[in-house]
Amino acid sequence: VCCQKVSEAEVFARGGIKDVLVSNQVRDPAKIDRLARMPKLGARTLCCVDDIDNVADLSAAAEKHGTEIECLVEIDCGAGRCGVTTTPAVVEIAKAIDAAPGLKFSGIQAYQGAMQHLDSYSDRKAKLDVAVAMVQDAVDALKAEGLECDIVGGGGTGSYYFESNSGVYNELQCGSYAFMDADYGRILDEDGNRIDQGEWENALFILTSVMSHAKPDKAIVDAGLKAQSVDSGLPIVFGRKDVEYVKCSDEHGVVMDPDGVLKINDKLKLVPGHCDPTCNVHDWYVGVRNGKVETVWPVSARGRAY
Amino acid sequence: VCCQKVSEAEVFARGGIKDVLVSNQVRDPAKIDRLARMPKLGARTLCCVDDIDNVADLSAAAEKHGTEIECLVEIDCGAGRCGVTTTPAVVEIAKAIDAAPGLKFSGIQAYQGAMQHLDSYSDRKAKLDVAVAMVQDAVDALKAEGLECDIVGGGGTGSYYFESNSGVYNELQCGSYAFMDADYGRILDEDGNRIDQGEWENALFILTSVMSHAKPDKAIVDAGLKAQSVDSGLPIVFGRKDVEYVKCSDEHGVVMDPDGVLKINDKLKLVPGHCDPTCNVHDWYVGVRNGKVETVWPVSARGRAY
Repeated sequence: VCCQKVSEAEVFARGGIKDVLVSNQVRDPAKIDRLARMPKLGARTLCCVDDIDNVADLSAAAEKHGTEIECLVEIDCGAGRCGVTTTPAVVEIAKAIDAAPGLKFSGIQAYQGAMQHLDSYSDRKAKLDVAVAMVQDAVDALKAEGLECDIVGGGGTGSYYFESNSGVYNELQCGSYAFMDADYGRILDEDGNRIDQGEWENALFILTSVMSHAKPDKAIVDAGLKAQSVDSGLPIVFGRKDVEYVKCSDEHGVVMDPDGVLKINDKLKLVPGHCDPTCNVHDWYVGVRNGKVETVWPVSARGRAY
Repeated sequence: VCCQKVSEAEVFARGGIKDVLVSNQVRDPAKIDRLARMPKLGARTLCCVDDIDNVADLSAAAEKHGTEIECLVEIDCGAGRCGVTTTPAVVEIAKAIDAAPGLKFSGIQAYQGAMQHLDSYSDRKAKLDVAVAMVQDAVDALKAEGLECDIVGGGGTGSYYFESNSGVYNELQCGSYAFMDADYGRILDEDGNRIDQGEWENALFILTSVMSHAKPDKAIVDAGLKAQSVDSGLPIVFGRKDVEYVKCSDEHGVVMDPDGVLKINDKLKLVPGHCDPTCNVHDWYVGVRNGKVETVWPVSARGRAY
């Protein structure tokens, strides 16, 4: 699995996952030390590197613990976050990793996050074509230096078909597809259909109750900002066209109910705007199958915001 | 203290608080039952009511447990959430509460949330003047019916001076002042000064580290959406004018660093955009005095999103 923090990676490794990539930089000495101990939990351990200065620190920690950290060189292929932007920089870092004891050069990380949420299929493809060209150039240059990429990783829920058909990526890192959310749901597939109405189904809901209806056209529900993240927009009321969630504050949601169909204690299933930081505010997933609660899973890696 | 959920109220009551107001409606039968048991924890227990149908349910639960629930009639004085909007509706509900066994009519809840964040002092005052007039009218009408208000509550960090000088409110319900945040910080006091540069000080910070600086003018830090809520805007980098937090994703923050002053592992103190739903994503407060960690407090009531 992929995750973004050492503290999350430890949870997965302790949970029995045998192959964990921290698809991010690890720079703090304490976190590097914890990362270097992860193979002792039985997990193949990988992280990303975008700075040659990071190599010696990772190497020293792996040597200290007698473990191996596999490293991917991160390319910024359009996301505008971490990652180097030129092939010479990729090659320089890769050679340093390859030469460092305790480290193994394992390939490239190239996640284009910024285009995942563009509505149009062709707009997303155009951005990814640029990324593929960058990655292909780097892979070729590495090969010329004798450095083969075991992993060329990237891809998300909005683009995985592009990476998988690129001929250069060999590992996909999609996550949101498993839950879907309102923001991803509205992007369009090749035929112009919303991806939450065909390709994927919504599987993550916030159950909320009507607690006030003092105004005839407006219901107030009990899921607000503390129950969900609204950075990517407000939630959709699942399966309902007659009511609309229009505003929220810390503990309140305002649902327009023009025909006054909602009653006190009516339940609504909200599809959150953005699944990732919504899961993060809850301690538990409640697993429901065929209308019955079947299991409760702790959100084990939440709360460790580092 | 005030809170918005029965589950939070229970945490406060168990923690020894002797006077707890759920400044919200309680409608679900299970939550009403829990609310009715709260006085057994030693706490005076209050909630809000905006629907006469709620009165019988609250009364039956208090009777069942042999306790007393004090009720405030909630007036929507401009927030557009819960609450009735006319004096006759206030009086009708108050009389029903007064007549119901197990309940005590204790006054009025009238929180004007929508204006708290208006930058201008006079704009906020104008909105609050409307609220005060509504509340005064209701208080007078109740008095004419022989119903005295023990509590006339409302007021927030952006307006408490208006409520306290109104001659009608007698209880203030401010909370954010204790922490301050970037959104409240930018509102102006009577003299046109930001309230976080005089009236209040910032006391809540997210400590974040630089983890990537692969681009010369841009640092990437490790506090993103999972470490804070951005519904009211991005965080401010405390005490720094040379760098600016400009964008975030789940686990990353992009900090513009035009002069390249930041180094890997440099720490920044972020003042979150909105303190309430930021506290909610953390399990602990770390208490620091004079640069040393002095205590760690659990965020005891978080995670109970109901």
